[in-house]
Amino acid sequence: MSLEKCAGPIKLLLCDVDGVLTDGTIEIDHEGKESKLFSTLDGYGIRMWRQAGLSVGIITGRDAPCIYHRAKNLGIEIIHTGTFAKLESVLKIAAEQKLSLEEIAYIGDDFPDLPAIRAVGLGVAVPHAPQELKNAAEYITQRPGGYGAVRDVIDQVFNVKGIDPLTVLSEIIRIP
Amino acid sequence: MSLEKCAGPIKLLLCDVDGVLTDGTIEIDHEGKESKLFSTLDGYGIRMWRQAGLSVGIITGRDAPCIYHRAKNLGIEIIHTGTFAKLESVLKIAAEQKLSLEEIAYIGDDFPDLPAIRAVGLGVAVPHAPQELKNAAEYITQRPGGYGAVRDVIDQVFNVKGIDPLTVLSEIIRIP
Amino acid sequence: MSLEKCAGPIKLLLCDVDGVLTDGTIEIDHEGKESKLFSTLDGYGIRMWRQAGLSVGIITGRDAPCIYHRAKNLGIEIIHTGTFAKLESVLKIAAEQKLSLEEIAYIGDDFPDLPAIRAVGLGVAVPHAPQELKNAAEYITQRPGGYGAVRDVIDQVFNVKGIDPLTVLSEIIRIP
Amino acid sequence: MSLEKCAGPIKLLLCDVDGVLTDGTIEIDHEGKESKLFSTLDGYGIRMWRQAGLSVGIITGRDAPCIYHRAKNLGIEIIHTGTFAKLESVLKIAAEQKLSLEEIAYIGDDFPDLPAIRAVGLGVAVPHAPQELKNAAEYITQRPGGYGAVRDVIDQVFNVKGIDPLTVLSEIIRIP
Repeated sequence: MSLEKCAGPIKLLLCDVDGVLTDGTIEIDHEGKESKLFSTLDGYGIRMWRQAGLSVGIITGRDAPCIYHRAKNLGIEIIHTGTFAKLESVLKIAAEQKLSLEEIAYIGDDFPDLPAIRAVGLGVAVPHAPQELKNAAEYITQRPGGYGAVRDVIDQVFNVKGIDPLTVLSEIIRIP
Repeated sequence: MSLEKCAGPIKLLLCDVDGVLTDGTIEIDHEGKESKLFSTLDGYGIRMWRQAGLSVGIITGRDAPCIYHRAKNLGIEIIHTGTFAKLESVLKIAAEQKLSLEEIAYIGDDFPDLPAIRAVGLGVAVPHAPQELKNAAEYITQRPGGYGAVRDVIDQVFNVKGIDPLTVLSEIIRIP
Repeated sequence: MSLEKCAGPIKLLLCDVDGVLTDGTIEIDHEGKESKLFSTLDGYGIRMWRQAGLSVGIITGRDAPCIYHRAKNLGIEIIHTGTFAKLESVLKIAAEQKLSLEEIAYIGDDFPDLPAIRAVGLGVAVPHAPQELKNAAEYITQRPGGYGAVRDVIDQVFNVKGIDPLTVLSEIIRIP
Repeated sequence: MSLEKCAGPIKLLLCDVDGVLTDGTIEIDHEGKESKLFSTLDGYGIRMWRQAGLSVGIITGRDAPCIYHRAKNLGIEIIHTGTFAKLESVLKIAAEQKLSLEEIAYIGDDFPDLPAIRAVGLGVAVPHAPQELKNAAEYITQRPGGYGAVRDVIDQVFNVKGIDPLTVLSEIIRIP
């Protein structure tokens, strides 16, 4: 189904972390500690999304402290880590949030994300994802993972819903 | 208005940080500490700008210690952090510095920068900015944020003002 | 010989680290400590490879603690570091693992990798490698080093062997 | 003069650091500590260069501990830091090493490098350098700074001098 038809009912955006909120690179230091590189385009997008009364969550196969720090910074409260069974997480979150699958968008970049992309109302893949994911997705982002892929989805959904980013932000940026 | 007409009166260059002085990536480590990746092209540009008797400042919605370290390194004294109401900062700085808006250039990459881009004499957007910013800007940089976008603005303004970078630098690089 | 003919017998994939599992950049901090940027595309690929009953090892001319941390994270047990005589390492590993050279794939990015690429059954070079390596290799990856080059090899070998990634992953991603 | 004519006499390669041995990005952490991202392509190139009996040095306007760590790792003994008067450094090094300017190659990326590029036998600029540097240079690298620009120069000079990289490396990579 097309993005135009799927985006209207979306109330919750669920994001994979590596390859989606980052470009898929994991920095490992000499002690084995992990850093990640996040995007401020996504950051502002997620602020606007929440400001517009919509929800956001992350589901990731890996687990690293930096994920929680970034999530806290962005006010993300739905966090599932350390699971490759991502569709199970999506179903659990849907039940907890009392949402139907049609009200959920999911964005991923690799095979563990495929069942979730197929199941939700709006399945999204990033450009570097395997072809199977791109075939299954309703939308493939223009911006790459880690460089605004999540923001891209938010812009598209806002556009279909008729939400104006500047109106959403007007209070915090105090447009005169 | 065109860059050629706007650049002449500019005395102060105000820069957003994330996405402008960086490419918009924020590195978060396992303790939640933040690092940023700055560009030496911008660094030399800002040195030349100040050497030519012009002023520079930064205005950023985020706040992180690395910003102050970089600013100190480059001799930047005008620093506004933690505010999304960037036009308010611009107006406050203009009053403090006794400058008109026509004497100010502002470079940004996202919606919170839009009112400032519209208000100043020379509004600038980076290539990855939303279309609304590019439409409002007098100039869109060739070099991306974090890879010389600010330097690009400095080069353009120098060109319009007839300032030669080598003459400006001649004392510190000691051209024989 | 073509990839299609070479990939069938492969049981062990040996990877150079810098330029292959990374894009070749080495981050050095103020204390001289080294970090590397690895790819989650490669990470999932190596998990699938091992899940399919195949082996993987790394051989690198440099030596840095971050390599061992990443190897441990991915369950890689064959690790040769600090040697530029990579073909010697390949021959030693082949003897230990009781494998013929036809059963080994080797992926590299620079001259020290050339003898190994020439000797093994499936020699692979990344796009940024010198032309001599590309001429000697049976396959040149589409994805660059550090952004899925190893995953690319795994995808290609799986394709020739008729291994379906989703079937391999079905248990851990729990496809309903 | 063309690269073919200039490369023959070269005995010493002098490199700027930021933008040449790196892509020009400076990572600043929360304490103001600086990290840099170096390239293993350059690393192997510099090893080959020294193995072939040629010399290498670095001259940089900035100063940061990570530079010394990388230089030590690569066996570079000629290190001038904290100076924008780079031609003065070149002339001093030439006198110390008893070399004529025709025997020196210099690679840079910004205005402080221009007088040195003009003065030496083989002046080199990276692709992101200002046009003035590219006009003055005998060679513009194909590979960008931080991704093998220095290696590129070494490859070109080896080619003109008729030095075979594999022969140079044969002892340490133990080609059978």
